[in-house]
Amino acid sequence: MPEYKTPMRDMKFVFNELLQTQKHYQTIPTGEEATPDMVDAILEECAKLSEEVLSPLNQVGDKEGCKLVDGQVITPTGFKDAYNQYIAGGWQGMSHPVEYGGQGLPLSLGVLKSEMISTANWSWGMYPGLSMGAMNTVYLHGNEEQKRIYLTKLTEGTWTGSMCLTEPQCGTDLGQVKTKAELNEDGSYKITGTKIFISAGDHDLTDNIVHIVLARLPDAPKGTRGISLFIVPKHLPDASGNTGEFNNVNVGSLEEKMGIKGSSTCVMNFDGAKGFLIGPPNKGLECMFTFMNTARIGTGLQGCAAAELSFQGALAYAKDRLSMRSLSGKKAPDKVADPIIVHPDVRRMLLTQKAFAEGGRAMIYYAAHKADFLIDDSNEEKQARADDDLGFLTPIIKAFLTETGYESANLGMQVFGGHGYIKEWGMEQIVRDTRISMLYEGTTGIQALDLLGRKILLDKGAAFRRFSKEVSQYCKGKSPYVTGKSRGKMKDMISELTWLNRQWNFVALRLVFNAMRNKDEVGSASVDFLMYSGYIVMAYFWAMMAEKAYEQLAKGAEEDKDFYRAKIQTAEFYFARILPRTKTHYATMMSGSKNLMQIEDEHFAFA
Amino acid sequence: MPEYKTPMRDMKFVFNELLQTQKHYQTIPTGEEATPDMVDAILEECAKLSEEVLSPLNQVGDKEGCKLVDGQVITPTGFKDAYNQYIAGGWQGMSHPVEYGGQGLPLSLGVLKSEMISTANWSWGMYPGLSMGAMNTVYLHGNEEQKRIYLTKLTEGTWTGSMCLTEPQCGTDLGQVKTKAELNEDGSYKITGTKIFISAGDHDLTDNIVHIVLARLPDAPKGTRGISLFIVPKHLPDASGNTGEFNNVNVGSLEEKMGIKGSSTCVMNFDGAKGFLIGPPNKGLECMFTFMNTARIGTGLQGCAAAELSFQGALAYAKDRLSMRSLSGKKAPDKVADPIIVHPDVRRMLLTQKAFAEGGRAMIYYAAHKADFLIDDSNEEKQARADDDLGFLTPIIKAFLTETGYESANLGMQVFGGHGYIKEWGMEQIVRDTRISMLYEGTTGIQALDLLGRKILLDKGAAFRRFSKEVSQYCKGKSPYVTGKSRGKMKDMISELTWLNRQWNFVALRLVFNAMRNKDEVGSASVDFLMYSGYIVMAYFWAMMAEKAYEQLAKGAEEDKDFYRAKIQTAEFYFARILPRTKTHYATMMSGSKNLMQIEDEHFAFA
Repeated sequence: MPEYKTPMRDMKFVFNELLQTQKHYQTIPTGEEATPDMVDAILEECAKLSEEVLSPLNQVGDKEGCKLVDGQVITPTGFKDAYNQYIAGGWQGMSHPVEYGGQGLPLSLGVLKSEMISTANWSWGMYPGLSMGAMNTVYLHGNEEQKRIYLTKLTEGTWTGSMCLTEPQCGTDLGQVKTKAELNEDGSYKITGTKIFISAGDHDLTDNIVHIVLARLPDAPKGTRGISLFIVPKHLPDASGNTGEFNNVNVGSLEEKMGIKGSSTCVMNFDGAKGFLIGPPNKGLECMFTFMNTARIGTGLQGCAAAELSFQGALAYAKDRLSMRSLSGKKAPDKVADPIIVHPDVRRMLLTQKAFAEGGRAMIYYAAHKADFLIDDSNEEKQARADDDLGFLTPIIKAFLTETGYESANLGMQVFGGHGYIKEWGMEQIVRDTRISMLYEGTTGIQALDLLGRKILLDKGAAFRRFSKEVSQYCKGKSPYVTGKSRGKMKDMISELTWLNRQWNFVALRLVFNAMRNKDEVGSASVDFLMYSGYIVMAYFWAMMAEKAYEQLAKGAEEDKDFYRAKIQTAEFYFARILPRTKTHYATMMSGSKNLMQIEDEHFAFA
Repeated sequence: MPEYKTPMRDMKFVFNELLQTQKHYQTIPTGEEATPDMVDAILEECAKLSEEVLSPLNQVGDKEGCKLVDGQVITPTGFKDAYNQYIAGGWQGMSHPVEYGGQGLPLSLGVLKSEMISTANWSWGMYPGLSMGAMNTVYLHGNEEQKRIYLTKLTEGTWTGSMCLTEPQCGTDLGQVKTKAELNEDGSYKITGTKIFISAGDHDLTDNIVHIVLARLPDAPKGTRGISLFIVPKHLPDASGNTGEFNNVNVGSLEEKMGIKGSSTCVMNFDGAKGFLIGPPNKGLECMFTFMNTARIGTGLQGCAAAELSFQGALAYAKDRLSMRSLSGKKAPDKVADPIIVHPDVRRMLLTQKAFAEGGRAMIYYAAHKADFLIDDSNEEKQARADDDLGFLTPIIKAFLTETGYESANLGMQVFGGHGYIKEWGMEQIVRDTRISMLYEGTTGIQALDLLGRKILLDKGAAFRRFSKEVSQYCKGKSPYVTGKSRGKMKDMISELTWLNRQWNFVALRLVFNAMRNKDEVGSASVDFLMYSGYIVMAYFWAMMAEKAYEQLAKGAEEDKDFYRAKIQTAEFYFARILPRTKTHYATMMSGSKNLMQIEDEHFAFA
């Protein structure tokens, strides 16, 4: 298994140099505490935890998996110790309010923390990660008592949380939810039903788990408008707010999965468990989805993490493994063969991984700045706009970065040749672990419908046009992220980006027009449109990163000149070898729905 | 796990209607026996074996895997029984000479057998599959005694064979092979060394295994010109030719792999085992690679098999699973939601699988016709030309069909949403099993170098030009496969194919020219060129299949009209939604080597 080494230089390049986060922190209330020294100290400490504690458990988690013993899930060796260190460090509440035990630091700083943890050990990261979902839900929709009882425990990490949405008959289509909630005399509810695919649904890291459960009141309307949200703890809190009596929340079974085996995926049976309504009745879906953007960006992060980790493993191997000679002449004449990094196709694979890892990082940190405004209630207009902007970027980040992350993980395995297929090296584990990211939190197809069907069609594309305008302003030399002093070097990239940005607008208009005539045009174009959009969004960041690197070089950054040159070279690779994928997506999404719809359901196969 | 159902209608369409194999069989010596009745009976029986015996063991093999017990590999439950049925049916020697116990039927018919077996249970199919490699080697390079002793046992299946090439330090770069062969007094050799990744290197299906081993004589020249080939049986034959004393061939360990877990992958230690030189000294690599084309086409078949099996699973699920409503109006108003096959993006995924499975089938059967001429010594010119033609098609079939097969397997999993990630459904197993096919028998990168570096550059592209000319003749209405009577319906596809075929020639010339100036241009363009070529080759077959379907419809094939219409619709899908991928590959392969080569090895990453 590749040992995770935090790519600190690149993280700081994006965080400090490109996005100038310190300037941004002066505009948000939580930014005050996040001084440069504080940020550096936090990143150092989190890197240490990730590299020294979590990374060594990554392969252990895969090998041992979780076990169900007497109705209780046992996590792999070392997971609990690592969790104890994590909560002792106060990491869980880093970006949560001080009044509930958190540190009140910006959400965007928490994203860097998540990145390190996820790259070092995604399976382990699922436990605190799912808890974030529960914390956000209680914070935003819980009443004061619920916050006092549950949020504090969750923020300090004494308890964890889970999100119980999916049932056997429905995942995407939550209108089909059947779990029942019947009013008890004391004002609580009796929750009965079965939930599946519940990540962190049970484990031995803490002695209590707070489930956030979607269920239906007896008189609720059918479909999505009749779903309510409940807090259902595994153990009820006792009089002093600590873990009390068992609440009939049972693990039905543990799923056997392709990957993320260290993360428990449970079938949960609520057998008349006591639940507490959170948020208004029948508004459960709206409440559940409030923080969906940030959760989905967290999943996009896994794509980026997979690209990074697999890249680290493949790069080390490519420098080490000796095979064949370079076609353009021996490169290591003293060795029995050349290291495979000399071969152009191996470099193509490595650069693809690198371009996706670093490009994805920039996209995610940028989105994280937007997310910082979400919890700033002082400026509602700014908040609403940030929410819209994030709503547009979220499906792209989630689906595009997980698809390209999976591609990157597969390329890393490919660099290893046959050895990539052997478990010992850990490269195939990254492929298996990453595969889930295109499925959960809404599949790629669902993200694509969200982007094209909702964010472009229904919302009239306001956020899309705003983003596209930012790109066009950048192309015209007006950007908060670069000075424009090195614009002379950027001609080719800027002209390509300008052209594609125009085409993007044309395509969006054209698809809206098509959809007005025939609704099936939406789903016929959606995934291609999403991927096409992803390549353009990432091109914007690669262009800016190259320009920033030129600017830093011009300032004479002697000690870092190799880093900046490599940035520019990777941007050139991206524009020459990755961005042309837009050509295919353009052609296919414009090809109409007939080629998909004309074949009869019964004519797909013949015996 | 999807239960394999032989796609007999489609197999016969390609075999009988498109390629008119019976006509072809009149031109080869082994064709005489393969009458229509005989062929039908064989396909029926093999379908039964594959569906009823092998398919039910596919998931068992994955779950149990192989075990190493007291130095002996134990295969999963049921594998040995299935193997006994297989040899009792005489399946192993179907396409091998009657004089060594075979049935002397055409090699191309054996390909349909392999297809059914591989799709039903690839892991199980590895045991007889690897044995084929050993049989071919002994048949072509063994002396009469070696054939008498080993080939007969292998042909009847009493013993199996393995191919021992790879060592820890080398896979692709076999010039690094270190295994030693020292002459014994009796003319045999003492073989000492370690081989890794040996499929079917040990198992309990038979009581003896014939290893074909690459090793080095004491005075051998360095590199690839100093490698010889040896027969090294696990047990030496006794005086009557049966399994005799143990020959110091030991299993060092069993690899833990991502997939094909029912197939044993062994580290083999030859501890002074007795070996017998086969073929001329120091010519081992040439001998080993004689039948490489057919072995690699067998791997391409796995890609096709993965697409087919995953398609079968995904199609059934897509008709069954109810989720959301069609955007263009309810399609199943009586149900709680529509079956997901109504959604355009689900259809896109299914049609992609279908297009790759059926298109790949046509490519493979076509190549199998060429392979039939290889064992026809009566016409040496025809034989040499078939070998060249196959040499051109092989890297495309191997790499393109495994890459698209892997894509198809992933799409099948994607159709299942989160359920695709759960082992029980068997969809993720197909992904894991298939992943090996892009690695073994030469990675995609190696196939691409073979295609562009050898078949186009070194061989001056004669076979490429011959194939491309066949495509252009077809476009002009001169083809042995269609009558041309329905040409009127084919305008769009023919014009697209004509154009791309011309571009293909231009690209090949251009890359040859680039490579003359700079050898790194080869590896920089090779994988894109291979995939680009694959899409064009498959387009040729899809166009022909559509035209054949039009012709059959015009003849009034009433009972099959749905089948033919679906063929045409799938061809339209392929041209509209898959073939535009050539646009991206064109752009990237023409982008030159600088964007890959300019970055210093040490500048790929910074701490």
